[in-house]
Amino acid sequence: MDELKLKNFYESQQLSVPLIYNLFKEADFFKDSCKKRNLKNHWLLKGKILATLFYEPSTRTRFSFECAMTRLGGSIIGTENAREFSSAVKGESIEDTIRVVDNYSDCIVIRHYEEGAAKKAASVSSVPIINAGDGRGQHPTQSLLDIYTIQNEIGRLDNLKIALIGDLANGRTARSFCYLLGKFKNNNLTFISPTNLRMGTDIKHYLQMHKTKFNEEPDLRKIISDVDVIYMTRIQKERMTRKEYRKAQGQFILNLDDLILLKKEARILHPLPKVDEIQLPIEVEQEDPRIAYFRQAENGLYIRMALLHHLLGE
Amino acid sequence: MDELKLKNFYESQQLSVPLIYNLFKEADFFKDSCKKRNLKNHWLLKGKILATLFYEPSTRTRFSFECAMTRLGGSIIGTENAREFSSAVKGESIEDTIRVVDNYSDCIVIRHYEEGAAKKAASVSSVPIINAGDGRGQHPTQSLLDIYTIQNEIGRLDNLKIALIGDLANGRTARSFCYLLGKFKNNNLTFISPTNLRMGTDIKHYLQMHKTKFNEEPDLRKIISDVDVIYMTRIQKERMTRKEYRKAQGQFILNLDDLILLKKEARILHPLPKVDEIQLPIEVEQEDPRIAYFRQAENGLYIRMALLHHLLGE
Amino acid sequence: MDELKLKNFYESQQLSVPLIYNLFKEADFFKDSCKKRNLKNHWLLKGKILATLFYEPSTRTRFSFECAMTRLGGSIIGTENAREFSSAVKGESIEDTIRVVDNYSDCIVIRHYEEGAAKKAASVSSVPIINAGDGRGQHPTQSLLDIYTIQNEIGRLDNLKIALIGDLANGRTARSFCYLLGKFKNNNLTFISPTNLRMGTDIKHYLQMHKTKFNEEPDLRKIISDVDVIYMTRIQKERMTRKEYRKAQGQFILNLDDLILLKKEARILHPLPKVDEIQLPIEVEQEDPRIAYFRQAENGLYIRMALLHHLLGE
Repeated sequence: MDELKLKNFYESQQLSVPLIYNLFKEADFFKDSCKKRNLKNHWLLKGKILATLFYEPSTRTRFSFECAMTRLGGSIIGTENAREFSSAVKGESIEDTIRVVDNYSDCIVIRHYEEGAAKKAASVSSVPIINAGDGRGQHPTQSLLDIYTIQNEIGRLDNLKIALIGDLANGRTARSFCYLLGKFKNNNLTFISPTNLRMGTDIKHYLQMHKTKFNEEPDLRKIISDVDVIYMTRIQKERMTRKEYRKAQGQFILNLDDLILLKKEARILHPLPKVDEIQLPIEVEQEDPRIAYFRQAENGLYIRMALLHHLLGE
Repeated sequence: MDELKLKNFYESQQLSVPLIYNLFKEADFFKDSCKKRNLKNHWLLKGKILATLFYEPSTRTRFSFECAMTRLGGSIIGTENAREFSSAVKGESIEDTIRVVDNYSDCIVIRHYEEGAAKKAASVSSVPIINAGDGRGQHPTQSLLDIYTIQNEIGRLDNLKIALIGDLANGRTARSFCYLLGKFKNNNLTFISPTNLRMGTDIKHYLQMHKTKFNEEPDLRKIISDVDVIYMTRIQKERMTRKEYRKAQGQFILNLDDLILLKKEARILHPLPKVDEIQLPIEVEQEDPRIAYFRQAENGLYIRMALLHHLLGE
Repeated sequence: MDELKLKNFYESQQLSVPLIYNLFKEADFFKDSCKKRNLKNHWLLKGKILATLFYEPSTRTRFSFECAMTRLGGSIIGTENAREFSSAVKGESIEDTIRVVDNYSDCIVIRHYEEGAAKKAASVSSVPIINAGDGRGQHPTQSLLDIYTIQNEIGRLDNLKIALIGDLANGRTARSFCYLLGKFKNNNLTFISPTNLRMGTDIKHYLQMHKTKFNEEPDLRKIISDVDVIYMTRIQKERMTRKEYRKAQGQFILNLDDLILLKKEARILHPLPKVDEIQLPIEVEQEDPRIAYFRQAENGLYIRMALLHHLLGE
């Protein structure tokens, strides 16, 4: 495996640090040309077709891939709810679906409800597979845009104090994020979650192996004035019972009281969508430079352009 | 606010009469070039992306927007049922959705189940928002194509006798239509609806302020030989109880008996889809020039091309 | 009716043998240029819009049409589940839907749950209609790619021994396939199905009229060593009761034991998706040249490019 070249992208661990920086450089380039409303990239993937196979709900991720492909001049065929409307309902295996769809596209972005589905897809596909979320597994393009945002906003990916907040047991974005942070030096992670939704031991073991310090802490306020990055995540209602949800809700909320404790240079990230876990007025979100999550969503476009170009460009 | 230039389009009232005529002129131009299967407009919105966010069912409106964008050379990313498949199901606010999607598109067409959603969207969006229907609120692009059709078919937008028929309490197309009619002189509206589904007082007050005459009348036959335009609307099953529906059905139906009473130059409009409220044989629909509703649907394309070009053209 | 030129394509019977060979020649041409990743066809349908109206689930068929249109340079507007999300839910007739959508597209591909829907659509449409499956009726583009695959893999369309297996009463692909086979000489068909899911007498009568021999046989093993083509189909769960399904399942399965009995030059086809009716390891499917069903799916692309170009090209 060439550490500077991917064939598929199904998990964060696949990325080497040099490849990450190459992708960042390309994302910077696309960011610049998109801001200038420059159409010169509009021919890079001319004639290529991206298939978006979404077995789970998503607008944001699907739209950002489709926008990225379109801005590069490519075309899209897609399904919004493959689970319900496609052959899956008839009992077809994911491998069979891929062995058909790879005839009709040059790249497949897949979101699936089963952990490991994207890797399984990659094992039979004749075209590149991109994982856009696989059950409780990973969401590696999200984590790539997360660290791209930190690099852009704070200027480094090492020597950072980072708090991860929310349902860390089931949140695939937090999981993929940790896999990437472990590749950089001297970061210090704090996990803040309900006791029943703690970060998995597989991630903790990985961080240990990669000499990345981490600790658990039940109260955000105790450490907030010290952190560089707050990575908020949603307590995913659909992943727990109503009782668990009521308990989790309210404990891990960020509001104006918290915001005034935060360092001037710190940044708040969120993979979005958010519900109650961030309670700030729209005006504050629009004006306070520490609120980075909408710029983070914007960066998703440039990172996905870079990735699609990496996988599909000549 | 420049009365000749829109940034967003969420309600009929935003349109000035001069702007309406400007848009008509442009629609005429697009109609002509589409009829000639001329591709010269196919570059006007090259590289632009339209996002279609539909929280309520629609094929016709979505297709006409997507066709309009495509005929102008632009691209589309879209969702058919944002309500079920997108982040809305996770509890995200409409403002948050827009602040993400505006990064991935150059214009957003939104249909939403809540009145006021499009205006809310416009308040935070960095790209133009077009209202394609917001609950019981409005459907302003429909009303624009409605009056464009009248202008095309009858040759004027004043001194008209117009009957509006159906569920006028909930029909957003009828509401938007009245807002536009109030901008022209000397029109005379007759509202024909079940007593429990009468036109709202907000519209009646608006018409009064704009010196447009209106009256209510329970029986179409009494006035049919006198009107210039019949604007039929569906009794929307999904907006009432089964009992109310049974009652409404049958009272406000147009059939061959009615058609023979109608003036030669009169026109029948319908925003479509229609169900039982118009009961005419297909052959009659195809031959009688007074049946204007399929030409009206066609006009939707040209009006939406004009609008997209107005909002997005250089 | 010109036997070399179609206006619509709603049933297999419409195809003359010379037209079939013309379409094959064109499909060969598109196959070749797609394999070479050649963009020269990418302008053939520039500016044309294909509308995909799917009232029943499908990824494979819809994607292959959308890919075909895109590879020819055309654009797509579509709906994945017209039944639920479009005006059908409001009670609109298929004729009305078509009379609107034909304003917004240059060709309409329709999959519908009612037999005859595509023909009905063709009767009112101003643009070509393609049937992508109508209830228990037909799926004529599937049968065209089926015989294209046989021509490619075996080199002839006559003097063939062909076994059709599965739910032949409801399987529209098998039905359309028979209509085409009847047009060629000296073929010998064997129908293998549960007794309650036998091939319809309309097809049997058609074959008799076209002097094509057929017989019924309850056990695949008795004839397998003698056949040139096995056409497997799914026992469609959604078309029978749970009890019927349990009974049908297991009786009409093809596995490794069967495969070793098959002639070297024989081919196994399947319209896909498949569930339990073919039980072969992925490696065998990838290596044994007699397994033709994924190449068959690939051929769907070239046949649909040929068909779209036939209907829409200048």
